[in-house]
Amino acid sequence: MSMVAGPPDDGATQSRPLTIAQLAELAQVSTATVSKVVNGRTEVRPETRALIERLIHEHGYRPQRRRAPFAPLVELAFDTLDGEAPAEVAAGAERVTREHGMAVTLSRLRYGDDRGRDWIEGVLSRRPTGVISVFCSLTGTEREQLATRGIPLVLLDPRDEQPAEVASVGASDWSGGLTATRHLLSLGHRRIAAVAGPADALAARARLDGYRTALDMAGLPVDPGLIAGPGDAPERLLRLPSPPTAILTCDDGQAAGVYRIVHRLGLRIPDDVSVIGFDAPLAGRWMDPPLTTIRRPLPEMAATAADLVLALARGDRPVRHRVELGTDLILRGSTTPAERYCRITENNLDARRRGGLA
Amino acid sequence: MSMVAGPPDDGATQSRPLTIAQLAELAQVSTATVSKVVNGRTEVRPETRALIERLIHEHGYRPQRRRAPFAPLVELAFDTLDGEAPAEVAAGAERVTREHGMAVTLSRLRYGDDRGRDWIEGVLSRRPTGVISVFCSLTGTEREQLATRGIPLVLLDPRDEQPAEVASVGASDWSGGLTATRHLLSLGHRRIAAVAGPADALAARARLDGYRTALDMAGLPVDPGLIAGPGDAPERLLRLPSPPTAILTCDDGQAAGVYRIVHRLGLRIPDDVSVIGFDAPLAGRWMDPPLTTIRRPLPEMAATAADLVLALARGDRPVRHRVELGTDLILRGSTTPAERYCRITENNLDARRRGGLA
Repeated sequence: MSMVAGPPDDGATQSRPLTIAQLAELAQVSTATVSKVVNGRTEVRPETRALIERLIHEHGYRPQRRRAPFAPLVELAFDTLDGEAPAEVAAGAERVTREHGMAVTLSRLRYGDDRGRDWIEGVLSRRPTGVISVFCSLTGTEREQLATRGIPLVLLDPRDEQPAEVASVGASDWSGGLTATRHLLSLGHRRIAAVAGPADALAARARLDGYRTALDMAGLPVDPGLIAGPGDAPERLLRLPSPPTAILTCDDGQAAGVYRIVHRLGLRIPDDVSVIGFDAPLAGRWMDPPLTTIRRPLPEMAATAADLVLALARGDRPVRHRVELGTDLILRGSTTPAERYCRITENNLDARRRGGLA
Repeated sequence: MSMVAGPPDDGATQSRPLTIAQLAELAQVSTATVSKVVNGRTEVRPETRALIERLIHEHGYRPQRRRAPFAPLVELAFDTLDGEAPAEVAAGAERVTREHGMAVTLSRLRYGDDRGRDWIEGVLSRRPTGVISVFCSLTGTEREQLATRGIPLVLLDPRDEQPAEVASVGASDWSGGLTATRHLLSLGHRRIAAVAGPADALAARARLDGYRTALDMAGLPVDPGLIAGPGDAPERLLRLPSPPTAILTCDDGQAAGVYRIVHRLGLRIPDDVSVIGFDAPLAGRWMDPPLTTIRRPLPEMAATAADLVLALARGDRPVRHRVELGTDLILRGSTTPAERYCRITENNLDARRRGGLA
């Protein structure tokens, strides 16, 4: 929110945000119209709305004392509602809001590629005590619209980079990559491959960096030929003259793809190759063998985000604007000591691989 | 809500529900106390609350005209927040509420075995426009507490039996069982086994009945030996002297168990045995081979429930109190024509089965 407003030499009020009446005077509209824009009501002409939003952007907005209190709601804004993660996030946030006598509302930022202005208008009209955006980002305009209405925002595990001043909660993905790789090292694996996630996904990059550091700290070289980048089929790894004995995947769903390739090649998990994934608590349990995985503690992350947004709503200054929670190694059936693999390799792996590739 | 109230010969008011003032007089408490109970506020002594709830139960409650409007919220009450289903339900309900300028709130009925009175108190204090209970039931008391406050209720796919007068939306599970079995029959399968769901789960029973009818209509006997009941390991089916060529599972997650047993016996899906499941859109895609499944249209069911609860809130009489939506057959990789199986059987299945069982 910019503080450059006010005519020169108007000492006392120079950098003070404007009231609804002052905004109405500047925009030459009624106070009712300004009030509608401030409170997210829809029946305002788009040009008028844009003008008032611009004035709020330039001068700031000062709520009147007698305005209605915030609703006892914390809004979870999702980009997509797919898979198991939304339920885990909702469960964690709901536990905290309930303790505070509040409820969780749930909304979607986007329908396909269509992100209208109506999401923010809905939020402003509901006046929640706080907003948590889940795995996605708000635009600068949306962030400012929340800020000028006094609605705090916390980002939960945003996929891309965010301004440092916005509060956020994430998982310690780098440590997760480190833990996953160290687990494989502790099983005696030395040729450990990695399947990288999307290049723009910070979490996947952090996991891959943790993998690199774990190898380096174990005195092993990081072989670029053992890293399958985006668009690079993991199958190549298994067709190497000296294939890896273990594969680390950095993104949800990649492990399932690796399972399919391994099986198509006539190989077995974990006998021929160990696989470790990230997330997928239920889907991973249903895979055969069940997937050993690094789990982001989503319910705890959501609870932390809810605590943080409620603290901001109370006017508390949070200790840190960025919090990362540690990940868990979930041991299931897809990783096994490397010795077992080596014995199989020497006896019959080459023959089996030739059969599978034929 | 009972209508037996009122002293005899009190003609005009005999069966009219009572106002807050009349309830206060009967209970010998202040109107403020009655108002707190009606609106779900917590600061009332338990005995007083019980007395007032009993009076409302006996006499009915008539809201005053000037009371606050309902909040533009539809509440989704979940029993558990696990897996993919909550996100699908939330997505469908949110689409409808958003079209009506409303939001979805989300709450949990139960934490483990602990179902306190505080869930209903939270709902009454939020005053949502409607409540949808998801996969679970409310108690008779909770239903009545909503009814006396004018908050309509719709059950989404309740697990157990419900009073006929409560509106509900489900999936046509019987037709789903029929469709699944007919798909296997169309592939030439004749020995089709079924894994039954929990005995008290109506949906699983309906699916099994659809299986029975499909076999019967195809002129095939229903062999009780080919049905694995609850507590009966599906492994028995695969160890039969003449094992089934296809297995239908009636409950989420059972298909994953069948996959594991099939693989442990050294058999392959679908080459040696076809498997069909219910639900699990993402987890099923990640299985290897991806699971052919019957899918309940959860987003559409939730949207229908939201439409229904909003219609009830407007005072509309719904066409039907029970709506069932058709299921979809999702063809993936776990089913294949029976001929392929038969060829394999004759050549080498016995040997492979012996190997697996050894």
